[in-house]
Amino acid sequence: MPQTVNLNADLGESFGAWEMGSDAEMLATVNSANVACGFHAGDPLVMRRTLSLARKAGVSVGAHIAYPDLQGFGRRPMTIPAPELEAIILYQLAALAGMARTEGLTMSHVKPHGALSNMACVDPALAGTVVAAIKDFDPALILLAPALSKLAEAGYLAGLPVVEEIFADRAYLDDGQLVPRARADAMIHGAEASLAHVSAMLDEQALISVTGKRLPCTIGSICVHGDGPDAVRTARFLREELLHRGYRLAPLELL
Amino acid sequence: MPQTVNLNADLGESFGAWEMGSDAEMLATVNSANVACGFHAGDPLVMRRTLSLARKAGVSVGAHIAYPDLQGFGRRPMTIPAPELEAIILYQLAALAGMARTEGLTMSHVKPHGALSNMACVDPALAGTVVAAIKDFDPALILLAPALSKLAEAGYLAGLPVVEEIFADRAYLDDGQLVPRARADAMIHGAEASLAHVSAMLDEQALISVTGKRLPCTIGSICVHGDGPDAVRTARFLREELLHRGYRLAPLELL
Amino acid sequence: MPQTVNLNADLGESFGAWEMGSDAEMLATVNSANVACGFHAGDPLVMRRTLSLARKAGVSVGAHIAYPDLQGFGRRPMTIPAPELEAIILYQLAALAGMARTEGLTMSHVKPHGALSNMACVDPALAGTVVAAIKDFDPALILLAPALSKLAEAGYLAGLPVVEEIFADRAYLDDGQLVPRARADAMIHGAEASLAHVSAMLDEQALISVTGKRLPCTIGSICVHGDGPDAVRTARFLREELLHRGYRLAPLELL
Amino acid sequence: MPQTVNLNADLGESFGAWEMGSDAEMLATVNSANVACGFHAGDPLVMRRTLSLARKAGVSVGAHIAYPDLQGFGRRPMTIPAPELEAIILYQLAALAGMARTEGLTMSHVKPHGALSNMACVDPALAGTVVAAIKDFDPALILLAPALSKLAEAGYLAGLPVVEEIFADRAYLDDGQLVPRARADAMIHGAEASLAHVSAMLDEQALISVTGKRLPCTIGSICVHGDGPDAVRTARFLREELLHRGYRLAPLELL
Repeated sequence: MPQTVNLNADLGESFGAWEMGSDAEMLATVNSANVACGFHAGDPLVMRRTLSLARKAGVSVGAHIAYPDLQGFGRRPMTIPAPELEAIILYQLAALAGMARTEGLTMSHVKPHGALSNMACVDPALAGTVVAAIKDFDPALILLAPALSKLAEAGYLAGLPVVEEIFADRAYLDDGQLVPRARADAMIHGAEASLAHVSAMLDEQALISVTGKRLPCTIGSICVHGDGPDAVRTARFLREELLHRGYRLAPLELL
Repeated sequence: MPQTVNLNADLGESFGAWEMGSDAEMLATVNSANVACGFHAGDPLVMRRTLSLARKAGVSVGAHIAYPDLQGFGRRPMTIPAPELEAIILYQLAALAGMARTEGLTMSHVKPHGALSNMACVDPALAGTVVAAIKDFDPALILLAPALSKLAEAGYLAGLPVVEEIFADRAYLDDGQLVPRARADAMIHGAEASLAHVSAMLDEQALISVTGKRLPCTIGSICVHGDGPDAVRTARFLREELLHRGYRLAPLELL
Repeated sequence: MPQTVNLNADLGESFGAWEMGSDAEMLATVNSANVACGFHAGDPLVMRRTLSLARKAGVSVGAHIAYPDLQGFGRRPMTIPAPELEAIILYQLAALAGMARTEGLTMSHVKPHGALSNMACVDPALAGTVVAAIKDFDPALILLAPALSKLAEAGYLAGLPVVEEIFADRAYLDDGQLVPRARADAMIHGAEASLAHVSAMLDEQALISVTGKRLPCTIGSICVHGDGPDAVRTARFLREELLHRGYRLAPLELL
Repeated sequence: MPQTVNLNADLGESFGAWEMGSDAEMLATVNSANVACGFHAGDPLVMRRTLSLARKAGVSVGAHIAYPDLQGFGRRPMTIPAPELEAIILYQLAALAGMARTEGLTMSHVKPHGALSNMACVDPALAGTVVAAIKDFDPALILLAPALSKLAEAGYLAGLPVVEEIFADRAYLDDGQLVPRARADAMIHGAEASLAHVSAMLDEQALISVTGKRLPCTIGSICVHGDGPDAVRTARFLREELLHRGYRLAPLELL
C-alpha cells in the first residue's frame, strides 16, 4: 500500500503593492497552503485571491498565524501575554476560516509562522497557549508543526490532530532542532540533495541530523519553499520524484 | 400588541492601552452592540472581551465594519476599488463572526461605521459593494442602516434583512440626511429632548426634519451613544421611558 | 551654453521583507531620488540604506511624502483635514531630513506621491495645504511638481523654489493632465518613443499633448521609473541620449 | 546655593481619536516632556499639538523613543537586529527634532519608553545600540535614563550628556531595579509618601531600596506620571513642596 505524504508551502505572502513568492507555480505543486492572515503578510485582497486560487488548484488551506508585525514579517521575537496572544490567534483563525468558507473552502489546518513558531517549538508554555487558542476555535483543526517540537507535543497533549513536518531544505542538529541559519551547513542546496535528505527521513520515519543521528518521528508533511525559481524547481522535482517512488501525495485533511 | 423596537450602540472601540466609551453601562442598556473589528478601533483582545460581556448581558452583536484607518478612527473618506473593499469587509465580518462563535454568540447584524457608512448612505454604487460583500459572507445577516439611506435601499434590493435606524441625538434635514455637525442645530441635547425626538418619530414611523417635514419609514432601531456620562444617562432614560410607554425592546435577531 | 535638466526617480519603496524597484541601477542613472518616508512605502532601515546609497552615488535626495496608507501604497484617495495633513507632511519631512543629515546629506526637495500628488495637482486648496506644510518646515526646499499643475502653481504662489517635471512614459491631454491609465494611449512604450517624447517637450519647453497641442512651461526635471528591467533600460537610454545631445544633467539643488 | 532638579513626564500619548493623560495639567507642572514619536503612541497631529503646548509652557522636550508597537503601547518586549533598531530610533529622533524645530523648540533630550527602556536598562548590548543611535543623530542630546541602569552607564561610556532619573511612585529593590509591578509593595501611593520617597533620595543622592539599602547615584530628574487626577495632584504637590524646600526646578538643558 502506498505511503501517503503531504507537501506544504507558505503562500499568500504578498502585501498591498508588494509581491512575494511564486504562488501560482507552488499551488500547482503542493497539496496544502499555509495562508498568511494579514498579521505578518497578506491583506484581505491577497487572502481572497490566494484562497480562490487554492480552491481551483485543489489545494487544502490552513491559517499561517503570526505575531502582529508586518514590518518584521513576523520574524521578530515578541513577548505577548497569553490572553492577548490567544485573542490574536483567534482573530486570524476566524478571518481566514470565514474568508475560506466564502470561497467554498474549509480551512483544515493551522501552522504558526516565523518567530511565533520558532519560540513555540522550544517553549512548552507558549506552545500551550497557541494550542489552546486553536482548540478553542475548532478542535478539529489539524496542527501542522515541526517534527519532534514542543509545539507538536503540545498539540498531542491537547488532543488536536497533529501532522509533523520536515523541511526539505534545512539540516537538523542532533537534538532535532534546525541547524541555525548562521552555520554554513544550515541549508540543503539543490533539488537532488533535498530529495536525498527528504527520502532518507521518510524511509526511516526519523529526523536525520548532520552527524547522522536518527530521531524517530511520524512524518506527515514536507515543507517546501517557493521564493525564487530554484525553490520552485526543487519543489516540483520533489513532487515528481516522490510520486515516481510510489508515494501518494494528499491534502492534509485526507491524511 | 406592543410595538417592538431595538436600541443599538457602537461598542468595543477601545484600542490597546487606549480606552473609549462606557461599554459596561451601555451593555446594560442596549439590545444590540455594533462591535469594532480592528480596522477603525478594537483589537483582538478588546473584541474578545466585548463579545464576552455582550453574551453575559444578553445583547446581540454585529460587525461594525470600517475603512482600514485606526489613526483616523474610520472617519476619513477613502476611495478603495470595489474588489479590495469587498475583501476588506469580508475579512472583518469573518473575524468578528468567528470570534463571536468562540464566545458562544452568533453574529446577527452588520453596521458600517464612520466614513464608510456616510459615503454608502449617499452613493448607491458604494452601497451596492458593501451589501454585496455582506451577502457574499452570509445572506441572513441583518443590515442595520440609517433610515431612508441609499445603504438601506441597497440592502432591500439585494434581499438582505434590513433594519432601519434613527439617531437619538441627531436632527434631520428635509431630505432625510442628518443635519451636518457644523450647524448649530445638528445635535439634540438632553435626555428629554432626545426622548421627544425619538418618540415622535416612532409614533409616526417617519423621520421628522428640523422644519417639521415627515418622511415615512419603518423604524426598527434607535442608535444611542455611550461616550461620556451624559450619553449613558440619556441612553438609560430612553430605555426606561420607552419601556414605560409600552414598547418592547428586543435584540435585532428577534425583531 | 548647455541646457541643464534633471532626472528624478522614486526610490526606497521596499518595505520590510518586501523588495520593490531597482534602486541600485536607478541611483547610477538619475540625479535626484524621491525617497519614501514610511507612510506609503519604506521603513526606517530601507530609508537609511537608500540615503546611504544615494550619498555614494552623488544623487540628491528629497522626501516622497504620501498619505498614511501602506496597504494601498498611498494610491487610495483620502480626505484628511488640513491641520492633520500638515502635521502628517511635517512628520515625513522631519524624519527624512533628519535621517539624511545623519548620512551626510542635505534633503533638497519634496515630491508628493500617488493620491496626494494626483489630488493636489487639481485641487488648489489641497495644494495650498501641502505647500504650506513644506514652507513651514523649510522655505528653501525645492518643490518638485508636475508641470502646469495646481501644485506647482501653489508652490510659486508661496514663494517656494519650484521645479516642474514631465513624465518620460506618460502621454498628456490637451489640458496638461496625464492621459488616464485606463486609456490605450496613456503610456509611452519603449526607450526610443520616450526619448522622442521627452526631447520634443524639452526642445519646445512645452507639454505636448496627444493631439499635438503645445502648453508652454519651464521643464526642469524628467521623472523616470525603475520598476522592471525595461524601465531601467529606458532610464539609462534617456540619460545617455540626453548627455549625447548636449544636455547637462544635474541634481535638483544645482539647477 | 539651591540644588537644581528636574521634573519630567511622559506626554503626547494620545493617538487619533483616543485621548490619554492630562497633558495640559502636566505641562503646567513639569519642566521636561518626553514626547511620544508615533511608534508606541502619538501621531503627527498629537505631536505637533504637544510640542506647541510645551513651547507655551516653557517645558523642554525630548523624544520618547519606543519599539514600533501601537497596539502594545511599546510595552511588549521585541527582539530587533541592531541595524534595524538604530534606524527605528534615528527615524523617531529625526521626526520629533524636526517637528520641534518647526514649533520653535530645540529637542534637548531622549528617553527610551516601555519595553525598550526596561530591556536596555539591564542589557548592555541593547543599551549600546540605543546610545549609538542617539549619538549618531546628535551627540549633544541628553540621555534621560533610570539611575544606575545599564542604559545610563552606556550613555556615560559613549560620552553623551546623561541625566539620571528616579521614579516618584515606584519602590526599588536592593540592586537598584524597580520592584516588579506584580508585588504588593511596587508602588508608592499618595502624594505625601511620594514626597518622602523622593526627598530622601534627593537628600542622600542615592536610591533607597525597600529594605533601606542606599545605592549612591547622581539624581538629576524625577519622573512623575499624569494618568488620572491623583497622579496630577501628586505631581503638583511634589513640585510645590520641592520649591518650598528650596530646590530649583529647571528644564533638562539647563541642568
